[in-house]
Amino acid sequence: MHNINRQWVLKTRPAGAVSTANFERVEAPMPDPDLSAGQVLVKTLMLGFDPAMRGWMADEPSYLPPVAIGEPMRASGIGQIIKSQNADLPEGTLVQGLPGWQEYSIGDPAGAIPPVALPEGTPPNLALSVFGATSLTAYFGLLDIGQPKAGDTVLVSGAAGATGSVVAQIAKLKDCRVIGIAGGAEKCGWLENTCRLDAVIDYKRENIQQRIGELCPEGVNVFFDNVGGATLEAGIEHMTDFGRIVLCGAISQYNDAEPSPGPRNLMYLVSRRIRMQGFIMLDYLDRTQEAIDAITGWVMAGELAWREDIQNGFDHIPTTLLRLFEGTNSGKQLLKLADPQ
Amino acid sequence: MHNINRQWVLKTRPAGAVSTANFERVEAPMPDPDLSAGQVLVKTLMLGFDPAMRGWMADEPSYLPPVAIGEPMRASGIGQIIKSQNADLPEGTLVQGLPGWQEYSIGDPAGAIPPVALPEGTPPNLALSVFGATSLTAYFGLLDIGQPKAGDTVLVSGAAGATGSVVAQIAKLKDCRVIGIAGGAEKCGWLENTCRLDAVIDYKRENIQQRIGELCPEGVNVFFDNVGGATLEAGIEHMTDFGRIVLCGAISQYNDAEPSPGPRNLMYLVSRRIRMQGFIMLDYLDRTQEAIDAITGWVMAGELAWREDIQNGFDHIPTTLLRLFEGTNSGKQLLKLADPQ
Repeated sequence: MHNINRQWVLKTRPAGAVSTANFERVEAPMPDPDLSAGQVLVKTLMLGFDPAMRGWMADEPSYLPPVAIGEPMRASGIGQIIKSQNADLPEGTLVQGLPGWQEYSIGDPAGAIPPVALPEGTPPNLALSVFGATSLTAYFGLLDIGQPKAGDTVLVSGAAGATGSVVAQIAKLKDCRVIGIAGGAEKCGWLENTCRLDAVIDYKRENIQQRIGELCPEGVNVFFDNVGGATLEAGIEHMTDFGRIVLCGAISQYNDAEPSPGPRNLMYLVSRRIRMQGFIMLDYLDRTQEAIDAITGWVMAGELAWREDIQNGFDHIPTTLLRLFEGTNSGKQLLKLADPQ
Repeated sequence: MHNINRQWVLKTRPAGAVSTANFERVEAPMPDPDLSAGQVLVKTLMLGFDPAMRGWMADEPSYLPPVAIGEPMRASGIGQIIKSQNADLPEGTLVQGLPGWQEYSIGDPAGAIPPVALPEGTPPNLALSVFGATSLTAYFGLLDIGQPKAGDTVLVSGAAGATGSVVAQIAKLKDCRVIGIAGGAEKCGWLENTCRLDAVIDYKRENIQQRIGELCPEGVNVFFDNVGGATLEAGIEHMTDFGRIVLCGAISQYNDAEPSPGPRNLMYLVSRRIRMQGFIMLDYLDRTQEAIDAITGWVMAGELAWREDIQNGFDHIPTTLLRLFEGTNSGKQLLKLADPQ
């Protein structure tokens, strides 16, 4: 075993756009091998990347505490247990959790977000992509907050993303008419042809607000928004009476140095009796199995498409995060550090 | 009977602030005395004024159609039936409805918002103030949309208004801690001393956002917002996890020539899982009796205070509307045209 634990730690908080200069590569000592009862030593195999990570870098209390300066960047991932003081998680077990941007971490089942064993035979990439947090976010956000009914028109922004693409497809499976918003012909084509959306708006070359109006002449019943800003405003403009807006994120704004103004048309929330509601997947942890069972069924039936963008190597961790904000990723952004032993 | 029906009709749509120049005084002929079966001829006795009337003047589809140019301005009011083809509404009956800014109107019980007989003995002013639409708005908006629990902190903007003051007092009756926002020492004093709010912020001399933080160190569970704009943003800043924002109106913005930017901190709706929801009292018409019964109980027990600002005379109708936007009214804005016969 090495006695070095390579890490990317948070060096500075981004004032605007996150950059590689916000992180520093350090060589820390291996975590203390004297594990407490219940603890496990985990070798990181694969990391997942999500726009929400930008929020964790801000020095502001939120649903998780800010990542401290000098600490490894918080990140979801898959690891393998290489030392265990926990009979339920023996050496060799693959686990999912928040290993962070480091090669080794100590997992504590008594922690707030403990490492969880992967079901036997689940490949690490699938555990982070179609069976990962983004799919659970899609499932609970759409169904619990959006409450789509058969025949509803559902609008999804960030539709080619890991969350958005699953939202759009679950909405189709629930017999809704689904319009996606994504950037570029390749992503739009994948959504139309593979994910079978009813229509897709390419925000890079179309006027979003005008196109929503053309494609949804009777209005939008459910708007699942990952983007915020002008996209949110465009969606509000076309909501039906009693429409539901699911606020999942606002990737257009995460890198703003100063907060951007909100939508100018919030008065429609009154006149059209619209509910706009945010949510966090962590609140649904006790219902994870329900979502995994449903997603497994759709995957096995070939009814749920997904894509993964797998980068490689410790050196490329920070640049891989930036891909999300550049929109250069195609599908769930992952990075592989090591193979299971 | 006269054969002239004086009216104030909508002459032009306001581009920004509503002004008296948007209305024209006309002398129309009396409504056709040949009533159809079911119809009644109503003499207007008293008019009610509400900020929502500004929205009805805009040429934009909403929960009610825009008032047409050349038509009497839409307004709630109390009238007396002076001719009837309706056995349920005999001559002499006092009715509540939407008579508009005119001395006489035809009421049609088959219409969307039909005239409704006042309970025997209800004074017209009370029917429009504490038993009026603003109180029903307060009742359903707070209880159904806001869902306050005993011990919650409830923030109310426009707290000295006809709706806000009833919201604040119902919240107190539901064992909540209630903070109001109002303009000027007189209104703030009335809210503290007569309505028994826990604290009141005077937006004319205090920093709203800072004061909410000081007065609500554990955050705001329910925010009933009548004001919008910077007030809405200040409230969002201090919402608790799972807080509810009841959007009732946005009087700060009704007179904007161009739509104002929305709150810059909508991302808190995600991280704090906040629900922000608009509503319209008209959706609750089938539950009117429930609200009236509750309000009657509180009024009879001396637990609900209210104020009326009664102007007089046909000539002063347009200037009376402006009082709402100037904030010069104290309590429910009314105007008396005639006494019942």
